[in-house]
Amino acid sequence: MADAQDILSLCKRRGFLYPSFEIYGGVAGMYDYGPLGTALKNNIIEIWRRLYTLGEGFIEIDSETINPEIVFKASGHVDEFADKMVRCKVCSDAFRADHLVIEYHPNAGALKDKELDELIRINKVVCPACSGGLSSVEEFNLMFKTNIGPGSGRVGYIRPETAQGIFVNFPNLYRYNREKLPLGVIQVGRGYRNEISPRQGIIRLREFNMMECELFIDGEDKTWPRFDDVSSETLRLLANDGLEMEISIGDAVDQGIICNQVLAYFMWLTQEFLKAVGVDEERLRFRQHERDEMAHYAADCWDVESLLSYGWTEIVGIADRGCWDLSRHSQFSGVEMSSFKRLDEPQEMEIDRIKPRYDKLGPMYKGKAGKIGEVLEEADPVEVKDGSIIIEIDGEDIAISDELFEVVRVKEKVTGVRSIPHVIEPSYGLDRIIYTILEHAYSKKDDQTLLSLKQTVAPIKVGVFPLMARDGLDDLAKDIDQELRYSGIETYYDDSGSIGRRYARMDEIGTPWCITVDYQTREDGTVTIRERDTSSQVRVRFDEILDVVRAALCDVDLSMFAVE
Amino acid sequence: MADAQDILSLCKRRGFLYPSFEIYGGVAGMYDYGPLGTALKNNIIEIWRRLYTLGEGFIEIDSETINPEIVFKASGHVDEFADKMVRCKVCSDAFRADHLVIEYHPNAGALKDKELDELIRINKVVCPACSGGLSSVEEFNLMFKTNIGPGSGRVGYIRPETAQGIFVNFPNLYRYNREKLPLGVIQVGRGYRNEISPRQGIIRLREFNMMECELFIDGEDKTWPRFDDVSSETLRLLANDGLEMEISIGDAVDQGIICNQVLAYFMWLTQEFLKAVGVDEERLRFRQHERDEMAHYAADCWDVESLLSYGWTEIVGIADRGCWDLSRHSQFSGVEMSSFKRLDEPQEMEIDRIKPRYDKLGPMYKGKAGKIGEVLEEADPVEVKDGSIIIEIDGEDIAISDELFEVVRVKEKVTGVRSIPHVIEPSYGLDRIIYTILEHAYSKKDDQTLLSLKQTVAPIKVGVFPLMARDGLDDLAKDIDQELRYSGIETYYDDSGSIGRRYARMDEIGTPWCITVDYQTREDGTVTIRERDTSSQVRVRFDEILDVVRAALCDVDLSMFAVE
Repeated sequence: MADAQDILSLCKRRGFLYPSFEIYGGVAGMYDYGPLGTALKNNIIEIWRRLYTLGEGFIEIDSETINPEIVFKASGHVDEFADKMVRCKVCSDAFRADHLVIEYHPNAGALKDKELDELIRINKVVCPACSGGLSSVEEFNLMFKTNIGPGSGRVGYIRPETAQGIFVNFPNLYRYNREKLPLGVIQVGRGYRNEISPRQGIIRLREFNMMECELFIDGEDKTWPRFDDVSSETLRLLANDGLEMEISIGDAVDQGIICNQVLAYFMWLTQEFLKAVGVDEERLRFRQHERDEMAHYAADCWDVESLLSYGWTEIVGIADRGCWDLSRHSQFSGVEMSSFKRLDEPQEMEIDRIKPRYDKLGPMYKGKAGKIGEVLEEADPVEVKDGSIIIEIDGEDIAISDELFEVVRVKEKVTGVRSIPHVIEPSYGLDRIIYTILEHAYSKKDDQTLLSLKQTVAPIKVGVFPLMARDGLDDLAKDIDQELRYSGIETYYDDSGSIGRRYARMDEIGTPWCITVDYQTREDGTVTIRERDTSSQVRVRFDEILDVVRAALCDVDLSMFAVE
Repeated sequence: MADAQDILSLCKRRGFLYPSFEIYGGVAGMYDYGPLGTALKNNIIEIWRRLYTLGEGFIEIDSETINPEIVFKASGHVDEFADKMVRCKVCSDAFRADHLVIEYHPNAGALKDKELDELIRINKVVCPACSGGLSSVEEFNLMFKTNIGPGSGRVGYIRPETAQGIFVNFPNLYRYNREKLPLGVIQVGRGYRNEISPRQGIIRLREFNMMECELFIDGEDKTWPRFDDVSSETLRLLANDGLEMEISIGDAVDQGIICNQVLAYFMWLTQEFLKAVGVDEERLRFRQHERDEMAHYAADCWDVESLLSYGWTEIVGIADRGCWDLSRHSQFSGVEMSSFKRLDEPQEMEIDRIKPRYDKLGPMYKGKAGKIGEVLEEADPVEVKDGSIIIEIDGEDIAISDELFEVVRVKEKVTGVRSIPHVIEPSYGLDRIIYTILEHAYSKKDDQTLLSLKQTVAPIKVGVFPLMARDGLDDLAKDIDQELRYSGIETYYDDSGSIGRRYARMDEIGTPWCITVDYQTREDGTVTIRERDTSSQVRVRFDEILDVVRAALCDVDLSMFAVE
C-alpha cells in the first residue's frame, strides 16, 4: 500500500498539491491545488454535479461563505462546534486534549473536560513540544470569526459547512420548486474549520472543499420512487451493533439496519459515484454511527469510509437529520419553514379550535368584544400558554385569559396539511475523496510510478509527442495537440527526452493515452497511440483518435448510474 | 433600457439571485445564487476556463481564501486597501466619505482625508440617516480580518482578490512549466471586500466571484505569437487623453495607445469572450486608466466597461503590472522569484564583480581573510550600500567596508540571464459580467419578459411539455426529458397551465428551446420544437432534436476564438 509520504511528495513534485504560502514558511492545515489537482478536482465536481442535477433532477445553489452569527446560533455551531484544547504553560503551544490521551483511553474523543483533565494528570502527560506542564482543558470554537461592516461591526463567521446556506434559503427554493416535495438541493464550495493543530496532509484541513446535498422530503413518507430499481444492489455495512456485512439495500431496509429507503438509495448512489471516480470498492465501507456518536435529532447516520494508509477514514457522511434544521431556523427567524401537502381529496379531520365565550367577552371588552372574538376564532390553540393567549388587536398585543374562551375539537374538511420537511443529507468531503483516489490509483513498479486514474477524472487526457523535435514532426505534433484541445480534450505537449521517459512522466500523473508523431505520420497521417494501463501501442489514423478518446471520455454519460 | 429594479426582481422571483440570509433580515452587499443563477454562472466559468486552458494553454490553480498577514503586507493591501469613512456622531452609522461629497467635487474618490473633511465642513454635510453631525475622516481597511489557529492566534485576512495565491506559488508553477515563459495561470474563486455601506445590487458585493489570469512574461519581450493573427480586429477605446475611438489593435499598439502586444491581445480575447457569453458589443468599451488612477508600478491599465442602467461600469480590468508583484513577494519572503532565460548561445557580457583587496584584508582579518575574500568574490555588487557590504562568514553577518574591495567591470561568458517576470493581469468580475448579461438580454413586450440569453450560457436549455398531463403524454414527455438530461442537456419539465403560459415562463428565464409532446407524438415520434427568439415552431422527429441541440450547444467549441 502507498504511504502518505509517497503521495504527498508526488503531489508536490508534479503539481497536484502545494503546501500553501510555502515561500513564507507555510501554514499548517492549508494546501493549494496545483494545475493537475485543480483539473482533477474540477472533473470530479462536474461528474458529481451532473449526477445530482441531470441524473436526479436536483437544483444547485451557491451561497455566501461569511454568515452573520444568528445563522450559526440556530444551527448550533456557536454553542457546540468546539474542540477541547490544552495549552503548554511554558511554550504556550496549543493541542487537542483528546489527541494527547489517545493511548490511555479507547474513545478519548467522547470524554468530558474533567475526564480529560483527570487522564492528563494521572498519566503525567506533558507538552509534546517542550515537555512543559499543561493547562486545564478549555473549549475552543472551531469557526473562523470576523466582523461584517466597519468598526467592530456585526459578528460573522466563515461557514463550517455549506449546508446552512441551503437551509436558510428553504422558502425561496421551495417556491422555485413550485411548492412540491421532494426538493433536492446541492452546493459545492468551501468549508472552514480553525483546527487547533492540523495534521495528516489534506485529510484535516482548515480550509476544505465540500459537495453537499440537502434533500427535503415529507417526514411521513420516506419511500423513494427509484428504490425498487436498486434494491438488489449491495453495500458493505458496518452496523452499530458491531456486525459487518455485505447486504442488499432492500434487505438492509427490510431488516431495519438502514432506517429508510431514501437514505439507502443515496448510500447506493454515493457508492456508485465513488466507484465511478476511482475509489476502490474493496477499500470502501459504510459505518453506522454509534448511538452516542449521532446527533440527538438524527434518525440514522452512516459514514462512508475508505481505507487509506491513515486507516479507515470518513470521506462522505449520509444522515437522516429529521426536521431539526428547518425547525431551528424557523424558531430563530420566526419564518414559516413548512411544506404544504395537498391531500388527494379534501378530508374531514378533527381539529382543535378556539371558541370565544362572547357572554364573558362582551361585559369585559364592550365594543371591542366582537373584534377580539373574530381574532380568537382564527388563532391557533397551540399558542395558548400559561392560561392565556396573546392576540393582536389594532397593532396592540393583548393577553386573553382562558376563562374567556374554550378549546373545542371540531370536524372540518381540509385540503392539505402543513409540516416541516425532513432532511436527508449526503455530505461529501471533496479533498478526502481526491486523496483517496490518488492513493487507490497509486502503484510503483521498478521505481516507476503509475497513477491509474479513471479516464474521466484524469487531469490530462492525452500526451502528444513528436518523435524528434525537428523535421516538421514538432509542428505536426503541435497541430494535433491544438486540434485535441480545441475539441475539449486536455493535452500535454512534450518534446524533450526519450519517448520512454515521456511515457513515464505521463504514467506518473495518470494520463490515459499518449500519441507519438513520427516520420510515418507525415506520409499517411497515422500516429502511435499508447494506452497507459496496458502499455499497448497501436498505430491508427489520427482522425480516428478523436472519436475513440471522446467516446471513452463522454463527459456527460450518466448511463453508468441508470438502472433499469 | 431595463432598470436594475426589473432585473433584481426577475432574479429573485425566478431563482437567479436571492438576497442572502433573507429570513434573518438580510445583510447588505450579500447575495446568494439561486438554481438558475448558479447554472448560468457555472456555464460562464466553463466557457472562460476552456478558453484560457484549452484555447491558450494556460494552467489553473485553486488557492486558499484565508491568508496570513504577511501575504497582504507584501501585496500592499494591509497598508493601502482602505476606504475613507466617516461616522455619524448621533446614530454611529458609517458612510464612505467620498460618496457623501460626490455632488461637491468631480473626482471625490481621489481626495485626501483633509480635503474630504474640508468639503464636508464647508457644505455642512450631515448623516444621511439621521442628520446628525459627522466625525472626521478615517481610513477603514476593507479586508475581513480573522485569526488562524487557537486563541488570538496568527492574524489572517480573507483575500480581497485571487491573484496573490498565484503570485506566492510562482516558484512551484514556474517549475511545473519546466522553467519556461510565458506562463499563464488562471484562478476562479471568491474575493472579499468588507464594504462600508454596499449598494447597487450585485455590482458592489462584500463577497464576490472573480476569474483572474496572471500571465508571466519576459519583461524585455512583450510581443505575442498570435498577435499578428488578430491585429486587424477592432476595439472601442476611450484613451486617457480623452479620445474615444474604434481602432484596430495593430494600430493601437503601433500608435502607443495600448502599451504592448500582449496587453492588446488579451484585450481582444476578453472582448471576444464577453461577446460570446452575451455582453452586447454596442454597450462595451475599454477605458484607459488616468495616469493618477493607475498604480505607480503599472505600465498600462484598461477597464472593460459595460453600459448598464447604473451607467458605464467596470466589469474586467486588464493591466500590465510590470515586475511589481513578484518583486514584492521576493523581497518579503527572501525567496528568488526570477526566471532564467537561456541565451541562444553563450554570450560574452560585461558584468560587475567584487574584487577583494587582499593586501588590506590580510592585515585586518588575519586567518579569516582568505574566506572573506572568497565570499566577497561571489557577492553581488548591488548589495554594496552606504560604503559597505554585509556578508555571512560562519553564520555571522560581517560588514566589510568598501576600502577593502573594488567593484570592477569584467567580461564573462554567460549561458543565460535571470530576471523577474512581468505580469499581464486580466481580472474578471464574474458577478458584474452576469449582471451585464442579464440586463443586456432583458426585454419586455406587452408585459411579457424575454431573456435572450446565449444558448451556451442559458441555465435551462430545453423546456419539455406534454400537451396534456394525461393519456400517456406526460409519461412520454418525462421519457424525453430524461433522455435529454442523460445526454447532458439541462431541461425543465412543466405540465401545468396552458402551453402559452409555459412558453412565457421559459422565455422569462432565457430557455432557448421548448418541446411539446402531443397526440401525434404517440403515433409518429414527432414533437413540436419552438425557438425562443423567433417564436417559430416546427415539427420534427425527437431523435433529430438531440443532434440539433447538442450541435448548437457544443460546449467545447473554441472555434469562435480561433483566428486563422
